[in-house]
Amino acid sequence: MLNNLINYEQDLLVDVRVILTVTLNPAVDVTYLVDRLVPRSATQVASARQRAGGKGVNVARVAAACGADVCATGLAGGARGELIVTGLAGQGVRTDFEPVTGESRQTLTIVETGRGPAGHGGIAGHPTELRETGPTVMPGEWSRFLDRFTGLAAVAGVVVLSGSLPPGVPAEAYATLTGIARRAGTAVIVDAGGAALRLACGAGPDIVKPNEAELLAVTGPAGDGMNRVGRLLAAAAALRGLGAAAVVVSMARSGSLAVTPAGQWRVSHERVHGNPVGAGDALVAGLALSVLRGAAWVRDWRREDWRRALVMASGLAMASVLNESAGEADPGLAASLGEQIRVRTPGGRRT
Amino acid sequence: MLNNLINYEQDLLVDVRVILTVTLNPAVDVTYLVDRLVPRSATQVASARQRAGGKGVNVARVAAACGADVCATGLAGGARGELIVTGLAGQGVRTDFEPVTGESRQTLTIVETGRGPAGHGGIAGHPTELRETGPTVMPGEWSRFLDRFTGLAAVAGVVVLSGSLPPGVPAEAYATLTGIARRAGTAVIVDAGGAALRLACGAGPDIVKPNEAELLAVTGPAGDGMNRVGRLLAAAAALRGLGAAAVVVSMARSGSLAVTPAGQWRVSHERVHGNPVGAGDALVAGLALSVLRGAAWVRDWRREDWRRALVMASGLAMASVLNESAGEADPGLAASLGEQIRVRTPGGRRT
Repeated sequence: MLNNLINYEQDLLVDVRVILTVTLNPAVDVTYLVDRLVPRSATQVASARQRAGGKGVNVARVAAACGADVCATGLAGGARGELIVTGLAGQGVRTDFEPVTGESRQTLTIVETGRGPAGHGGIAGHPTELRETGPTVMPGEWSRFLDRFTGLAAVAGVVVLSGSLPPGVPAEAYATLTGIARRAGTAVIVDAGGAALRLACGAGPDIVKPNEAELLAVTGPAGDGMNRVGRLLAAAAALRGLGAAAVVVSMARSGSLAVTPAGQWRVSHERVHGNPVGAGDALVAGLALSVLRGAAWVRDWRREDWRRALVMASGLAMASVLNESAGEADPGLAASLGEQIRVRTPGGRRT
Repeated sequence: MLNNLINYEQDLLVDVRVILTVTLNPAVDVTYLVDRLVPRSATQVASARQRAGGKGVNVARVAAACGADVCATGLAGGARGELIVTGLAGQGVRTDFEPVTGESRQTLTIVETGRGPAGHGGIAGHPTELRETGPTVMPGEWSRFLDRFTGLAAVAGVVVLSGSLPPGVPAEAYATLTGIARRAGTAVIVDAGGAALRLACGAGPDIVKPNEAELLAVTGPAGDGMNRVGRLLAAAAALRGLGAAAVVVSMARSGSLAVTPAGQWRVSHERVHGNPVGAGDALVAGLALSVLRGAAWVRDWRREDWRRALVMASGLAMASVLNESAGEADPGLAASLGEQIRVRTPGGRRT
C-alpha cells in the first residue's frame, strides 16, 4: 500500500527544478571602444555595446547556455532595468525581477584600441572602468522582494545569491534569503564579500564562494606561518565554523580551493589567457548545475560528487576566461578543457 | 456679409500653434561625478545623473519652460529612446518620435571633483566627454519619419531642425524637411553644420543658426582683410546667398550676429560665467518663440521685430550659461538680463 503512494509535490518539483539567481544590484554593462582616452577632452566612441550585467546575471547566462532552466530575480528599475530584463530574456533566461523606482546602475568599460595616429598599437593592457553605486532601494520594495523570493525559492532546485547589495538593502539580506530558501528545503550558494557574506554564513548556506580577498576580509589573517594555500584553507575552515557547509575559494588564475564536509581539494589547471572578469560567476554556475543534477543534498555529497562538481565548475571558469565577453562560457569548450583540470588533496606545504 | 466669415482653419491653427523640434539623433546625457579619473583603472562613481539630451531636445525644454506648446519629434530607439521620451514628457514637452530598431546614443560627461586625498580641490576645468555615434537608421524608418513629420509640420507654427544626423540618414535630410515645412506654410529654423546645413540653405529656411566654426566650414574663408566680425558678416551673407532668409551666428561668449532681410546686428552683453554647453540651443528656442509670437512672417520682420527677437533669444542664452545644467534656462532670469544686452549695427571696423 505505502509503495503506491506518490508524493506529487516532490515529483512535480523534480520537473520544475530551476536555478534561481538573485541579483539585487544588476547593471547594464556598457563597453566603449575608443582610440585613446584623454581625460578632460572630448572623445568620439568608435563602438558601443551594452548588455545585462551583474554577477548573478552572469551566473544565469552561463547556466542557461548549459541548457539549465534558469530564472533570474532581483531588483531592477527604470529604462536600464527594462534593458536588463529584455536582454536576459533574449538569452534564454526567465526573469522575475521586483521593480524598483530608482534607475538600475550602469557599469562602463572603456577599452583603448590605440590605433590612431598617436596610438601605440594593439589593445591597451587594462580598460578604464566606471562603476555606479546603484539605486537606493525603499523599505517597501525590499519587503515586496522578500515575498516574491519566498514564492520563487519554494519551487527552485537551487538558489544563487551573488554580488553587491545596493543602498537601502540591509547587510543581513543574504542571511535572510538563505534562511527563507533553507526553510523551503532549497539549496543555497552565496557569492559575496564583507558583512553580507559573514552574516549569510550564520544562516547555513550549502556553498559559499568568496574570492581570496573576500575570504580573508571576513576571517582576518589565518594559518600563521603557512603558505598561501595553507592560509586560505585555514580561513575557509573558519568560514565553515561560521555556518557554511562548504567553502569554495576562487584564486583567479591559480584555480580554486574547496573545503567541504567530504574533504579538501586544490583545483588547478594550465594557465589560460583571456578575460578573467566573470570567471568566478562561471565557476558558481557550474556549482549550481551540479547541485541541481546531483542525486544527494550538497551536505551529503561524497568525494566523487565534489570532484565532478569542481571539474565541471572549473571548466566553465576556464571557458569564460577564453571568451572575450565577460561572464559568458561555451559549455562545449568547457567540456573539452576537463582533461586539463587537476583536482587533488592540497599538499599544504608549510614554509 | 464677408466680415462674418470665419476662417475656422486659421483660427484653429492659431490655437494649436506649436513649436515642433526635430532631433534625429537624440541622446541620454549621463553625467558622472568622480573624485579623479585615472585611465586604465577602476573608478567608483560618486554620483550619476541622466536626462534626455541632444540639441533639439534642449530647444524643446527651454521653449516649454517659457510656456510654449512644444512637441518634440525625431528618431528614438530602445530603452534609451524610452528614457528620452519619458524624460521630455516629465518636463512638459509633448513627444511624437518615430521608433527605430537601433538603441539611441548616450553621451557621457565625467566631472572630476578632485576632493579626494590626491585631489587638487574644486571642480577641474574641463570634463571628460565620451560621445557615441548613434544608431544606424534603416531606409524604411527614415521614410516613416518623413510621413510623420509631414503631418506634424502641417499643424506646427514653427519647425526647429537641430543637431547631427545619425548614420543612415541622408545628408540632405534637413533640406528635405525644410521643403516639406515650407510647402505647408510653416516657418523653419535650422541649427546644424556641414553638408546638412549647406544643403538645407538651398531649401530656403527662414533662419539658420550656425556657430562660428560651422559657418566658416560651409562658406570657407570670407571677408579677407576684415576683422572677426567683418569676416563672419561676409560669411553669413554668403549663406543667405545659398537660400537662407536670415542667418544668426552664435559666437560663444562674444554674443551673436544676425544678417537678415531687415538689416544686420551685432548682439553683445556682459560676459557671464557658467556652463556654455547648450547656450546655442537656448538662443534657438528664443528665436522659435519669437517666430511663434510674431504677427508677421520672419521674411517680413521689421527692424524692431528682429531687435526684440534677438534680445529675447540672447537673454535665454545668457540664462542657460548661468544654469548649471546644460541647455536649461529660467525665463524669469532671462527677462531680468534683458537690460544687459546690446543690439547694434555692427561697426565693421576693418583692420
